[in-house]
Amino acid sequence: MKALSRPNLYLALVHYPVINKSGEIIASAVTNLDLHDIARAAKTYGVKKVYIITPLDDQKELVQKIVSHWTLGGGSRYNALRKEALELIEIEESLESAVRHIEAVCSVKPRTIMTCARDVGGRIGFREIREKFESGEPYLLVFGTAWGLAESLLETADYVLEPIRGNTGYNHLSVRSAASIMLDRLLPECC
Amino acid sequence: MKALSRPNLYLALVHYPVINKSGEIIASAVTNLDLHDIARAAKTYGVKKVYIITPLDDQKELVQKIVSHWTLGGGSRYNALRKEALELIEIEESLESAVRHIEAVCSVKPRTIMTCARDVGGRIGFREIREKFESGEPYLLVFGTAWGLAESLLETADYVLEPIRGNTGYNHLSVRSAASIMLDRLLPECC
Repeated sequence: MKALSRPNLYLALVHYPVINKSGEIIASAVTNLDLHDIARAAKTYGVKKVYIITPLDDQKELVQKIVSHWTLGGGSRYNALRKEALELIEIEESLESAVRHIEAVCSVKPRTIMTCARDVGGRIGFREIREKFESGEPYLLVFGTAWGLAESLLETADYVLEPIRGNTGYNHLSVRSAASIMLDRLLPECC
Repeated sequence: MKALSRPNLYLALVHYPVINKSGEIIASAVTNLDLHDIARAAKTYGVKKVYIITPLDDQKELVQKIVSHWTLGGGSRYNALRKEALELIEIEESLESAVRHIEAVCSVKPRTIMTCARDVGGRIGFREIREKFESGEPYLLVFGTAWGLAESLLETADYVLEPIRGNTGYNHLSVRSAASIMLDRLLPECC
């Protein structure tokens, strides 16, 4: 019987370039619970790394401080499960530097799968992505904070994943919820 | 062609009685982003109300203050989408009082579907619950904060839903992630 191979999947949470409510390009502030929730969901579904993307030095320091607390400091002794999840986090200057990091580990450049709740064309479905994962090649699933990834970044995507539609027409999930649901759809339970 | 009827589903987030890391029964503090994330996911999937369950007066006041900001105050003008979601929130003293509230609206007592990441017996599957929803009768999906619902509450459940397993054996999702994933599994996309 062939063993189930786990997809070679990485995740990135982008704080720049993203857009604000008015559609302007901004660098968003890091939200503490984004780190926890997304790292915990990533750990649950076997994602290999969670890249927190920000070019801002004070935001990098903030992320480092939070992650260190849970992986090395008091938090690591208080809650070993939280430690395991937060250990997945890496801080990177840009999406390009995260791509280079994965390329260095895997010896092949990852394909990017970007997400966007807005109405943009040329989407790929969840089933098609699951089939692609079977190749064992690396993929990087990319989420935007604030009001979503900037158009300039989306234009560089290998794939843009279809959005979560729910069943009401209401389209305003948190990035924490969207990432959790998408991981559940892309990486079905093995047991 | 028969129109798809939306399930008659309510959600409750319980802050008492829940357990802490040591298994002791506590009343947990309300987390701001629980309200936002769960209300937004509930709105996305057509849940009718989100009951925040706490017997503590200062916590009720906190929830009321947060909800009022987004439904009546400055937040409602800043972000109308957030307003729509937060309007689903009702504060209740206990799970029993939430059940009575639903019973008063629906003229029939809702069945409770409780959730628990711990290993407890007698679980019902997602597919079976989806089939039950077709009756149009009211159901109340119940989540615990902190380390989960107290045993004394779980014993009163009509159903205990199977847990989310992921594909790694790691079992430590946030309640925000678990609620989002469970709604996605129980209320599939209509379009």
